[in-house]
Amino acid sequence: MTTTRTSTARKPVTADDRVPADLHIDGARLWQRLMTLARIGATEKGGVCRIALTDLDRQGRDRFVQWAGELGCSLRRDAIGNLFARRAGADDRLPAVATGSHLDTQPTGGKFDGNFGVLAGLEVLQTLNDAGVRTRAPLEVCVWTNEEGSRFVPVMMGSGVYAGAFGLEHALAARDNEGISVREALAATGQAGPAPAAIADGAPRFAAYFEAHIEQGPVLEDAGITIGAVTGALGQRWYDVTVTGQEAHAGPTPMALRRDALLPAAALVQRVNAIAQAEQPHGRGTVGSLRVFPDSRNVIPGRVQLTVDFRHPDEAGLARMDAALRAAATELTSRGVTIAVEPVVHFPPQPFDAALVESVRMAAADAGLSCLDVVSGAGHDAVYVARTAPTAMIFVPCKDGISHNEIEDAKPEHITAGCNVLLHAMLERAGVATG
Amino acid sequence: MTTTRTSTARKPVTADDRVPADLHIDGARLWQRLMTLARIGATEKGGVCRIALTDLDRQGRDRFVQWAGELGCSLRRDAIGNLFARRAGADDRLPAVATGSHLDTQPTGGKFDGNFGVLAGLEVLQTLNDAGVRTRAPLEVCVWTNEEGSRFVPVMMGSGVYAGAFGLEHALAARDNEGISVREALAATGQAGPAPAAIADGAPRFAAYFEAHIEQGPVLEDAGITIGAVTGALGQRWYDVTVTGQEAHAGPTPMALRRDALLPAAALVQRVNAIAQAEQPHGRGTVGSLRVFPDSRNVIPGRVQLTVDFRHPDEAGLARMDAALRAAATELTSRGVTIAVEPVVHFPPQPFDAALVESVRMAAADAGLSCLDVVSGAGHDAVYVARTAPTAMIFVPCKDGISHNEIEDAKPEHITAGCNVLLHAMLERAGVATG
Repeated sequence: MTTTRTSTARKPVTADDRVPADLHIDGARLWQRLMTLARIGATEKGGVCRIALTDLDRQGRDRFVQWAGELGCSLRRDAIGNLFARRAGADDRLPAVATGSHLDTQPTGGKFDGNFGVLAGLEVLQTLNDAGVRTRAPLEVCVWTNEEGSRFVPVMMGSGVYAGAFGLEHALAARDNEGISVREALAATGQAGPAPAAIADGAPRFAAYFEAHIEQGPVLEDAGITIGAVTGALGQRWYDVTVTGQEAHAGPTPMALRRDALLPAAALVQRVNAIAQAEQPHGRGTVGSLRVFPDSRNVIPGRVQLTVDFRHPDEAGLARMDAALRAAATELTSRGVTIAVEPVVHFPPQPFDAALVESVRMAAADAGLSCLDVVSGAGHDAVYVARTAPTAMIFVPCKDGISHNEIEDAKPEHITAGCNVLLHAMLERAGVATG
Repeated sequence: MTTTRTSTARKPVTADDRVPADLHIDGARLWQRLMTLARIGATEKGGVCRIALTDLDRQGRDRFVQWAGELGCSLRRDAIGNLFARRAGADDRLPAVATGSHLDTQPTGGKFDGNFGVLAGLEVLQTLNDAGVRTRAPLEVCVWTNEEGSRFVPVMMGSGVYAGAFGLEHALAARDNEGISVREALAATGQAGPAPAAIADGAPRFAAYFEAHIEQGPVLEDAGITIGAVTGALGQRWYDVTVTGQEAHAGPTPMALRRDALLPAAALVQRVNAIAQAEQPHGRGTVGSLRVFPDSRNVIPGRVQLTVDFRHPDEAGLARMDAALRAAATELTSRGVTIAVEPVVHFPPQPFDAALVESVRMAAADAGLSCLDVVSGAGHDAVYVARTAPTAMIFVPCKDGISHNEIEDAKPEHITAGCNVLLHAMLERAGVATG
């Protein structure tokens, strides 16, 4: 389902000879920062709870700002609370080569989701500082606001506003379950800044954007591969399906006189799977929620509600899956059992930049790391940023593919490897100043 | 799925010539009593809520006692609250020919379930009184305590104690959700009497027991038939099934690396249906409850819990269904997805008495009523009484097969027809006194 790539070890096209071939980041220092950050909002089970725009989130962001300041960075804070730590380039008028991710977590989140991408960015800057390497283009490390969406929707809020996926005012007006708006939460935590948030309002475009992230899936671990060169993010189409039959008593109702809603629902579950199997290697189909009414042991189900989640790397594939779902629903409708299919979400696929993906492959090959082309099945800030700039992502394995969970775990050697790939990919794009 | 029977119109074997051939019950009077009784516990939606051993149940029972007294009956009240209204026979030492049902309802019950069988019995007695017909054997009309089981379990409690399905003390100790025991509820409503409740303790056996009841299913209505001659009650085997896979994120987890618990669960739903289809005409298989965990749109189900309800007219059939279910569970177990099948209930099938079933068919034929052999898929007091005496049931259609619902409905002409069949079937068994 994935394609192994063995890049020949060749020189990055724009790198300078004065970059030490063995320049590498300090894995122990990066790991130490990850563990230090994980203490803010640490949970008893070893996870992290640092929900967007809470005081704990503010503490995590303050720590980032402090570290970035110690590295000599300037800081830009925009109207939706995104943070940009900037290391000047030799030609500071060039668009920046950027990296980053998010610091907010799920309520029962882990130490690595988001945090790895942000702290890997800082580690790249510190490595360059220590080695005395000056890049031609400036470098920036981004902290995107509210990626997780567990308190405020839409998810990926900061990067979504930046890329124009939705408007700043729409995001600022979103409220949590207690009625607090994003605008109020930004003010309460001091996170809103003077810089424009959206590119449409003047926020700067990047020359390139890389995001390092744990995979949050099982592919790399299963294949025994260290680096995933992410070729793009799957598009998503979500549906609510209602199957309506007739509730009746299980005892007195013969098989031939039933209008059991669960039978076509069960067939539809299998069809969703078959539809995805026909779209390999990257098509995915999931029925995650299925509810039976009245849900009583001796009553024939009169109604079933279920969800369908389709993912595919291209729109044509999503359209095939959509058509196949509707055909299955029509075909499974029978003798008084109806099936209604309602689309609820449609995220388009987002291919990443071919040149940047190749930079990731080359950086891995140069470092002697195993590398596999993979796709991102989940959303990331990079998926929105990719609408505005050449973008790629670097995945590293996470234990058992588990994320959004306090037992989320990753190996220090994989974290180190991912950051080294980030370092060389960014250097290759930013260039090294000769002057 | 059912066998049509056309009985030749021949004389009942023991009936006396002095019984008017056209003796029939007063349908309007029976309907009036049903509507009068339905006012006790009447709900806004036209149903009845008269839960076992509540004050409303007592009021309904008091009305029965009053009506039975007006008909000159003697009353026997036993230790579990069963009531027996007795009309003496010419030879009162003969075992009684009995009929009856229950007066308690579901919380959102209807006007006919149970009530029809009890009031049909009173109507039979009043018809005989009016016509001056004396039977050789005594007649009794039974009101069985707590048939519905919605407040106290076991269900069919009064008839179960009578037949020895479980002990009197076990029943008396049962408690409702508020901690009130059956013993306390009987005392509070004055329903416990001095007569022994169980046959084992000296309660009298019947010569025959008939129970008239709405079908609670769709067979008669679908076939356009007025009378169901019930040949027996289906046996039941119930199961809890747990399917265990591995919860994972729908986006980042490729199809080939999933351990989705819902896929084999969906296949099992279809197998349960196929197993029942292979046991026609009377095998039944239902998955009424199915729950998915964690039940989230974009999470692959890690666990599914579902129920299986099998019904069949004979034990060998139930055993085949049991074996097929276990084989299906084994076959559907794969790659880290396990299926555990736990039996939770086993009621044996209960065939009714062939001679009494024939009495029902003959009575229907003599009255010019269409009649079909049917099975009872649900439990009834008759199913327990059948362990102790020759027993049969008389079904009449109910609208859309719906029962245990406030919209439960039946046509007056069907109610009348069922009671006329009961009259003649009881007369045929009890005989008419010549002296």
